[in-house]
Amino acid sequence: MQIEICFSPSLIHLYEHRDSVVVVTDVFRATTTICTAFANGASYIIPVATEQEALAYKSLGHLVGAEQATERCSFADFGNSPSEYSVDKVNGKAIVFMTTNGTKAIKGAADCYQLLIGAFVNLQALTERILSLGKDVLIVCSGANGRICLEDSLFAGALTSTLLAEDGVEAASDGARMAVALWHQANRDFSNILMQSEHARRLIQHGFRADINYCLRRSIFGVVPELQGDKLIVRKE
Amino acid sequence: MQIEICFSPSLIHLYEHRDSVVVVTDVFRATTTICTAFANGASYIIPVATEQEALAYKSLGHLVGAEQATERCSFADFGNSPSEYSVDKVNGKAIVFMTTNGTKAIKGAADCYQLLIGAFVNLQALTERILSLGKDVLIVCSGANGRICLEDSLFAGALTSTLLAEDGVEAASDGARMAVALWHQANRDFSNILMQSEHARRLIQHGFRADINYCLRRSIFGVVPELQGDKLIVRKE
Repeated sequence: MQIEICFSPSLIHLYEHRDSVVVVTDVFRATTTICTAFANGASYIIPVATEQEALAYKSLGHLVGAEQATERCSFADFGNSPSEYSVDKVNGKAIVFMTTNGTKAIKGAADCYQLLIGAFVNLQALTERILSLGKDVLIVCSGANGRICLEDSLFAGALTSTLLAEDGVEAASDGARMAVALWHQANRDFSNILMQSEHARRLIQHGFRADINYCLRRSIFGVVPELQGDKLIVRKE
Repeated sequence: MQIEICFSPSLIHLYEHRDSVVVVTDVFRATTTICTAFANGASYIIPVATEQEALAYKSLGHLVGAEQATERCSFADFGNSPSEYSVDKVNGKAIVFMTTNGTKAIKGAADCYQLLIGAFVNLQALTERILSLGKDVLIVCSGANGRICLEDSLFAGALTSTLLAEDGVEAASDGARMAVALWHQANRDFSNILMQSEHARRLIQHGFRADINYCLRRSIFGVVPELQGDKLIVRKE
């Protein structure tokens, strides 16, 4: 099992991934929010890439989460803060979801063996699921408008390091080596380091400091959302 | 002075750099080779992006260095090994130069305040030159066919760390933080780490092991090649 990392969705065309497991991560906050919604009972989530699509779903009566430049879109029921997706709001519900980076990355990487949703909050369950599939893995970092970002790169390093503890897992690519080196460098102090990231500073400006701490909690959920057709679901055991 | 890093030439459009100093690096081997050619007396170098352009210059009688998939192009006078650009071959000569990644990165980033050529072999002189210009800096890693590569990312970290030792230099972007963290992690053992990189393994397969050690020597040259129009030159003091 080889692990490769695509640090920006703008580079996805350079990576052969049709027969790989793709893990899309957007730590701040889309993939953390998706995991939270499923942990709180959401039935399924339809990720969409554009505000127009989200608005079209809304006009058809769907429940919609949509974020633009950190804030909730005015037409939407939810924004991109995991704190909004509480049990009373999402249990048993289907949700259409659109964010600046994460849902675009999901749509752009969908042509693969199996697309999984990853974040610190489901790290352990995600690791187990990847190992059970036994395929090569491409970790796709959602980044920030195409640029590389610290939090997704560090998550890629954390996941790669965790997978490397297992027999038969290799991370020989430059990208995987870089992510693992970053993770080893940052691991001891990673909350403080991520608090300095561009995205964390932006979230704090917008009043979402609590979301940062939440997004950095590790393995608090056992859910591993996966893409089936145009829906994200959580497989029932 | 802010430092930002573009880890792949495929992401250059995402970075505002028209009023910045751009440093293009391709440690293995194009920018190391360019520095070597100037240190050995080359008068100027014309970087070109494609084999067709290099061939056209050759047919007009120019001296041409051209590399395709690590090897010298059959029509060319030189390949991309710095060892070929000896004083007896290049002193006083103009050279047209085309490589898989480095010269494409130069052409793609040329629209800036001043484009400089960087590698470990001219790290100290490059640092002094950047500080004397006093502009924001974008370090452009040439990568490998658009993918991020270890050696250029580590060089970006080395250069950023060196610049950060000076007053008034900031590296607050996620990219700069990542490169510096990587450099701190790899610094003590960086020759061994880079020997494991994808590019180093490919160079060894092609018989260029000596080039790797050469490309990792630090600050052996005082030259800082810069782009003037379509030519790389070294400014006479």
